[in-house]
Amino acid sequence: MIGSNYFDYAATTPLDPKVLAVMVPYLGDNFYNPSAGYLKAIAVKKELNEARSRIAKALGCKSPEVLFVAGGTEANNLAISGVMQQFTDANMLISQIEHDSVYETANQYKNKKIKVNEKGIIDLEDLKSKIDKNTALISVMYVNNELGTIQPIKQIAEIIHQELDNRHKNKNKLPLFLHTDASQAGNYLSLNVNSLGVDMLTLNGGKIYGPKQSAVLYVNSKASILPIIYGGGQERGLRSGTENVVSYVGLSRAVELSQKNHIKEQKRINDISGVLLTELKTKLPNAIINGDRHKIPNIINVTLPNQDNETIMMKMDEMGYEIAVGSACKASNDEPSRVLMAIGLSEIEAESTIRISMGKYTTKESVIGLVESLQKACQ
Amino acid sequence: MIGSNYFDYAATTPLDPKVLAVMVPYLGDNFYNPSAGYLKAIAVKKELNEARSRIAKALGCKSPEVLFVAGGTEANNLAISGVMQQFTDANMLISQIEHDSVYETANQYKNKKIKVNEKGIIDLEDLKSKIDKNTALISVMYVNNELGTIQPIKQIAEIIHQELDNRHKNKNKLPLFLHTDASQAGNYLSLNVNSLGVDMLTLNGGKIYGPKQSAVLYVNSKASILPIIYGGGQERGLRSGTENVVSYVGLSRAVELSQKNHIKEQKRINDISGVLLTELKTKLPNAIINGDRHKIPNIINVTLPNQDNETIMMKMDEMGYEIAVGSACKASNDEPSRVLMAIGLSEIEAESTIRISMGKYTTKESVIGLVESLQKACQ
Repeated sequence: MIGSNYFDYAATTPLDPKVLAVMVPYLGDNFYNPSAGYLKAIAVKKELNEARSRIAKALGCKSPEVLFVAGGTEANNLAISGVMQQFTDANMLISQIEHDSVYETANQYKNKKIKVNEKGIIDLEDLKSKIDKNTALISVMYVNNELGTIQPIKQIAEIIHQELDNRHKNKNKLPLFLHTDASQAGNYLSLNVNSLGVDMLTLNGGKIYGPKQSAVLYVNSKASILPIIYGGGQERGLRSGTENVVSYVGLSRAVELSQKNHIKEQKRINDISGVLLTELKTKLPNAIINGDRHKIPNIINVTLPNQDNETIMMKMDEMGYEIAVGSACKASNDEPSRVLMAIGLSEIEAESTIRISMGKYTTKESVIGLVESLQKACQ
Repeated sequence: MIGSNYFDYAATTPLDPKVLAVMVPYLGDNFYNPSAGYLKAIAVKKELNEARSRIAKALGCKSPEVLFVAGGTEANNLAISGVMQQFTDANMLISQIEHDSVYETANQYKNKKIKVNEKGIIDLEDLKSKIDKNTALISVMYVNNELGTIQPIKQIAEIIHQELDNRHKNKNKLPLFLHTDASQAGNYLSLNVNSLGVDMLTLNGGKIYGPKQSAVLYVNSKASILPIIYGGGQERGLRSGTENVVSYVGLSRAVELSQKNHIKEQKRINDISGVLLTELKTKLPNAIINGDRHKIPNIINVTLPNQDNETIMMKMDEMGYEIAVGSACKASNDEPSRVLMAIGLSEIEAESTIRISMGKYTTKESVIGLVESLQKACQ
């Protein structure tokens, strides 16, 4: 049983037992290669495509626009390299606070970084000024993984429409695609791709109570991308390799559940978050909450002045609470968080900052206990 | 329960219940992100690295030389692109009968194809003649997935040593690496990388009773490659993304079991294969067995003159037997097999050819039943 003292849901979520339940048959008798020609294999292929359809329904898109890939990092790589390797002279824009899987991939190409304000929201004027006639892709995350702040994706889509109108007039045929990494969004926000106005969207199983290294890249049928992995031509030639059916069936259930429950879960966590913030204010009055009010409720980023976050994390661990120092998605955490530097924290402030992230098993009682322990850890 | 009438183990293998048993904890409480800093996550990271060590032991290499990646196709892509993207003027050699995940990836770079003889064994003289001063990589599969033939990997390693000696004399500093896709080999042959003399080796969980989309790329510590997927820097920066711990722990058990049992299982399947060949000779005297005697015992490739393989496959399916038409690893099977064309079959002969592949649950009784049904299907 996952305890209620786990406060690192933004790093990864436990598998939902309902997700595991739909996976079980594919760990046993339904092991067939979906590309084989006999009936049992054809049945598995059908079930894989039904999983795809369920995700398409949840995202409000067409089935063939849903590509199954091995993890959120791979999805982000495919979105970026899939576009950028087509245009040698093109550049792309990303925000300063993207996840490494976007940031490091963008650094393989010409790119410009869009500034964020001190709340961690991108500066749309800066974005506009950085689009030029060679910009082929803008990749901005839907929700930041350290702060929880929600980026203005729809407004970016509108800016792109204006730019494309201008390009049409100027006979500039270079496309300009919008990609968003929605890894952190699925449990709390709608992922309807039409409302968002994106051409590509990354959806990550490991953050929505689904299997790790299972993900979807939504690619609008009007957007054309190239593969980064070549072979037998699975996933419309865009991700070759025998399909990980067990994971993708699990992922589809996780997407359905997260999208079905997101409003209810947002409210529930919002209430708990209210308790957490009140407790912090009372028990640790010097604590500074980073980020914007326009955010998902489950991520709380806190600077504890004059404290060392590594020490706090370890003390909390001894008291039975798992919290994070920066993002756990970076294999080595030696450098201060790029996200916190971007919103203007000093190196010392960044190293006094922890991330508390809540989820399915978090309760009001558990956050009260968390802050009590945090108070002790800070003494 | 997997029946004994499944004859497509080369397409994919069912999960061994012993493999599933070690995976279960990671589908539940042990879900932590291995990159997080608290004790429960550190424990998961330790278990991941123990899985890595077990594979290293089975391959006879060092732990850091074992990279976990999402599937055999990805491993082959990483081996090839990992080398070739470093050297813009370089070329590479592959055999004509490589799996698509090698063939299509090699086609992204300058490459030459090594001829095979009518038995499906590569022509070493042709290989020698095609190495030039710009050749940086040779990728030849250990065992062919359609014929089961074993390629002379050690001899290729020796040829490479001679070439590297010459380059040293000529002050040509370009490396020349040897990669082998050993996806089909693990259940029947030793995968000791030193005996093979390879710099890189692909090991595929989905073919050795392990999880699908789990694989290892062994990379000798002297070989340096670049990533194809960028991000948080997991797997020594060569495969970013939160690790699929559940799959990699399962994979390590699958590797241990296959390497522990390979001699015994080779003998067992060899006996069954003897029965199969005798039955074929008696009941279908016109049948032609393709490939070489130097092969793993579980793959039998048979041309049935004047028969259409798709029809045979479907008739066999109706009688409860799953067999293959070509390789199942290609998502669309419209073209005649490239492997069969390379060994000199006509298009019509290739379309009269089936693949029977055996494994764990195959029995002498089941192959007798198979050939009886095959006889009926051919009438």
